[in-house]
Amino acid sequence: MITIVKIGGNVIDDAKALDHFLDDFARIGGKKILVHGGGKLATELSGRLDIPVQMKDGRRITDAATLQVAVMTYAGWISKTIVAALHAKGCPAIGLSGADANLIPAKIRKDEKTDYGFVGDPVTAHPDFLQLLLEQDICPVFCAITHDGNGRLLNTNADTIASVLAVALSQKEETQLIYCFEKEGVLRDISDPGSIVKKMDRTKLQELNEEGKIHSGMLPKLKSGMAAVQSGVQRVAIGHAGKISALVKAGADCTELVS
Amino acid sequence: MITIVKIGGNVIDDAKALDHFLDDFARIGGKKILVHGGGKLATELSGRLDIPVQMKDGRRITDAATLQVAVMTYAGWISKTIVAALHAKGCPAIGLSGADANLIPAKIRKDEKTDYGFVGDPVTAHPDFLQLLLEQDICPVFCAITHDGNGRLLNTNADTIASVLAVALSQKEETQLIYCFEKEGVLRDISDPGSIVKKMDRTKLQELNEEGKIHSGMLPKLKSGMAAVQSGVQRVAIGHAGKISALVKAGADCTELVS
Repeated sequence: MITIVKIGGNVIDDAKALDHFLDDFARIGGKKILVHGGGKLATELSGRLDIPVQMKDGRRITDAATLQVAVMTYAGWISKTIVAALHAKGCPAIGLSGADANLIPAKIRKDEKTDYGFVGDPVTAHPDFLQLLLEQDICPVFCAITHDGNGRLLNTNADTIASVLAVALSQKEETQLIYCFEKEGVLRDISDPGSIVKKMDRTKLQELNEEGKIHSGMLPKLKSGMAAVQSGVQRVAIGHAGKISALVKAGADCTELVS
Repeated sequence: MITIVKIGGNVIDDAKALDHFLDDFARIGGKKILVHGGGKLATELSGRLDIPVQMKDGRRITDAATLQVAVMTYAGWISKTIVAALHAKGCPAIGLSGADANLIPAKIRKDEKTDYGFVGDPVTAHPDFLQLLLEQDICPVFCAITHDGNGRLLNTNADTIASVLAVALSQKEETQLIYCFEKEGVLRDISDPGSIVKKMDRTKLQELNEEGKIHSGMLPKLKSGMAAVQSGVQRVAIGHAGKISALVKAGADCTELVS
């Protein structure tokens, strides 16, 4: 069983929460991969460098200066500090982008309405080299940077990276994909932590979305997760980063995505 | 035969020279590793962020803010842009620091006179995983960042990284180490390009150094190179980055380091 865990900015931005999470993550048995989002560092660095931040539907519009900031923070500082921390916790790791070993080739996003700049959507993921790493007990740590194969790095959604990796690996070996964030799952009522949607299928997703109950940042995660389920990933769940040890064993409240 | 090539800031800072170099490097046959220095980007970024740059004997004094800048630029932007460019030139590559897969554990530098901050000297290099990459035809691209094994990233001299990698690999397989810069070798007379010192041994190095003919930035390179020769690296040479295709075949003027 391969476990792919995605963490977002809320974990990365909180040093204590990140340390706690990495302690738990290091102890997960078996083959595992960590995918991390960016957090506030890129936004903060852009601010200090007077580079304007533009967002559209939860995605960063990426000009050349913003791409450089994204690569520096995601593939540089965040990736390597996580790798060093995991090693100190007894979990050998390697920091990767989709450009490394051509793991995730991507295409620059073409959108009639919005020019997203240097934003890429993964075409596929190449699992063979990842399997080699996993067999060596080295944990791949992915940032959300890919490339177009022509020398251009591209900023990519981390939820999509996690989904594409899970789909590619699930063809070879049983794979579970866990999206972690700061809640115990998708809530029917945002003010009621007990209102977790325990099972989410396409129909329920459409229903909740039409009712306006899906938070704008949650929609790409749910779409990526649902795509993974549809493509054969054996388990996809959304839950709390603080409960990762139980989540990976299906022993914590969460939202399970089903087909 | 494994070929390890180190390039410095002069190549990295000149987009055209770098592109030309990477074209040539991609065409080198057999197993190969690229080690890159930092160039001006870290200094420039420190400037834009109002982080003072302090140098001592050609080495950057690294406080916490400077470490972050070094990791962002070396392990982030420079590493990943080189990896993406090499892939576009038909050479699959992977960007690594010494923290990744614990390839180069290091110790924070203790110096009675100077506190270098978060600067590390490599303890060793672990060649097994590198050999696995090389057997997969994936070219490791190293930046000059290591770690202490306790979660702390460290800024490290790139010449030393190249030397430590060469020493470790030379125990397993014939290895050559080529330091590239903007001249054809060590010059006896800096104003005369024809005054290349073609063979440099410890005696000649000491002699030239006492005569004040070794440029301060060149001394760490020569010391690292000489250490590699003494430790059994089969060939160590210093030459011009623009002539790398000939240099790797011992077909260009250069300074050969001998024991």
